[in-house]
Amino acid sequence: MTSVAVVGATGAVGAEILVVLEQRAFPVGDLRLLASARSAGGRLEALGAEHEIREATAAAFEGVDLALFSAGSDIARALAPEARKAGALVVDNSSAFRADPQCPLVVPEVNGDALQAHQGIVANPNCSTILLAMLLEPIRKAAGLRRVIVSTYQAVSGAGARAVEELRSQEAADAAGTEPTASVFPRVLSHNVIPWVQDFQEDGYTPEETKVRDEARRILDLPDLLVSATCVRVPVWRAHSQAVHVETERPLDPEDARRVLGEAEGVRVWDKNDFPTPREVAGTDEVHVGRIRADRAFPGGLALWGVMDQLRKGAALNAVQIAERILGVAGKAGRRT
Amino acid sequence: MTSVAVVGATGAVGAEILVVLEQRAFPVGDLRLLASARSAGGRLEALGAEHEIREATAAAFEGVDLALFSAGSDIARALAPEARKAGALVVDNSSAFRADPQCPLVVPEVNGDALQAHQGIVANPNCSTILLAMLLEPIRKAAGLRRVIVSTYQAVSGAGARAVEELRSQEAADAAGTEPTASVFPRVLSHNVIPWVQDFQEDGYTPEETKVRDEARRILDLPDLLVSATCVRVPVWRAHSQAVHVETERPLDPEDARRVLGEAEGVRVWDKNDFPTPREVAGTDEVHVGRIRADRAFPGGLALWGVMDQLRKGAALNAVQIAERILGVAGKAGRRT
Repeated sequence: MTSVAVVGATGAVGAEILVVLEQRAFPVGDLRLLASARSAGGRLEALGAEHEIREATAAAFEGVDLALFSAGSDIARALAPEARKAGALVVDNSSAFRADPQCPLVVPEVNGDALQAHQGIVANPNCSTILLAMLLEPIRKAAGLRRVIVSTYQAVSGAGARAVEELRSQEAADAAGTEPTASVFPRVLSHNVIPWVQDFQEDGYTPEETKVRDEARRILDLPDLLVSATCVRVPVWRAHSQAVHVETERPLDPEDARRVLGEAEGVRVWDKNDFPTPREVAGTDEVHVGRIRADRAFPGGLALWGVMDQLRKGAALNAVQIAERILGVAGKAGRRT
Repeated sequence: MTSVAVVGATGAVGAEILVVLEQRAFPVGDLRLLASARSAGGRLEALGAEHEIREATAAAFEGVDLALFSAGSDIARALAPEARKAGALVVDNSSAFRADPQCPLVVPEVNGDALQAHQGIVANPNCSTILLAMLLEPIRKAAGLRRVIVSTYQAVSGAGARAVEELRSQEAADAAGTEPTASVFPRVLSHNVIPWVQDFQEDGYTPEETKVRDEARRILDLPDLLVSATCVRVPVWRAHSQAVHVETERPLDPEDARRVLGEAEGVRVWDKNDFPTPREVAGTDEVHVGRIRADRAFPGGLALWGVMDQLRKGAALNAVQIAERILGVAGKAGRRT
């Protein structure tokens, strides 16, 4: 049995990690739910028992075998080295270690072998990157990759509980005919789309768009891959979507692309004239792909439409899969109900 | 004064045409509101007076100078030639004549000169195409165009009144915690995105995606332009958005792109670290553009974000502008209130 700490247990990803651990029958021995001092002392039901929430401090990792972090970059930077010193394997969901060459950045189905070189801390990629990398890897193996253009349709739950609450109250205002207000996002999200995820950089891109490029390059081990992204928040509760246009090194027929994607672990290909949407994908483990067609701007290339529950495969599930691989645990496929 | 017939006066675009005619102080003399036999006999307030709705028949165009059609392709094919025989100038909002070499396909700010060759029937482009063509033309003039990848975020009102009603009742069901149902779209649109506008073609593209390519080629007079589109419906009431990635013939700096777009008639450029969204664009006449940045996949090319009220510039306003140009009427800029 494994002694497990979940850091950020009160957040959306933390809650999903607890669900995934239970559904996959992860051999959890002692379970420690860690959070900020503000949440400490509260109680949380998880894996069939009630647990006290403890403050995440260096001392809290004593005796822990596996620490699953989903508490942001600052806490990861402060506490992940402490957890590691205490002997725990750390899987961190923040961006703190994603560019650190000592920390593998891994989607198990894509570059699981990179885990062999881990030194105690493994970085879980950005959710949009996980979706994109899962779609690109089978295409890369079959035909190589030259250029990728991706536009995202990202669910509000990716921005946290306050964002979800804000959308809910904006929708109530809209329904009542009053003017909704925004504070989490720079615009009202209800009945709107916002081409801004998090911030702006000097070059006009958002950090999310840069993560998608930089992390995809690292996971696919293609440091020069051309990746241009537009990341957009949409009023969807759960599951991110992407319109992906790919220039390949060698021509790849849409039928062959359907085949290689269908053979890829963790990918579900939808029927030719059908497509996945966030509502039906929410709660599932797979990356779903449809609308696979010959790209009209990249001769021999492909256009496709991918959807993934960004809290499961995009965060919690991927983190638990990483732990399973390293600890030699066989995971059981689940589904959120 | 001009005797004007509005065909499809009871639809969303027809209603917007009446608003635009009034706001631009179009010199309307006799006004004939035409619709299906089902609507005939009803009454409609327009341009400060009440009008009887008459059935759209060949005889209804007698004495009409200008017939603005927004009643679908079948009615346009049946009645536009009749209106023309009766001496009317026809501007048709359907796809019936968009590929007909005898009928100019025009966005006045882009290829207004093509109107000189008209033979009585002018085609108004698809709304997504108008937005894209308005964004591309200034770039084409400055640097040439080689390849365009566009992903759309299309408002529900583009699919008609039944679609708007469907979304409204789905949202009510979601708010009440019951399961919404869909009939206009193949999926529930509430809290969802649907990568399907209208239908599927043999090659896996939707007709909307094909229109965007074919009509953009014709309007820009670039018959070989590579255009790949993914068209997606989003739960937004009004105004279409597009993430556009452009490979140019010659390098174009983002600052120069901002300048040429800012100088283009009918385009409003947003500040560097700002962006338009559908909620604030709804009701305006301009094509709004923000997030202009150097494209990371097309060196020397551009990424941008465009938003346009698809019922105004995307339909009604563009049609009235075409009529103004041909009839030599000076239009007055308006705004829906």
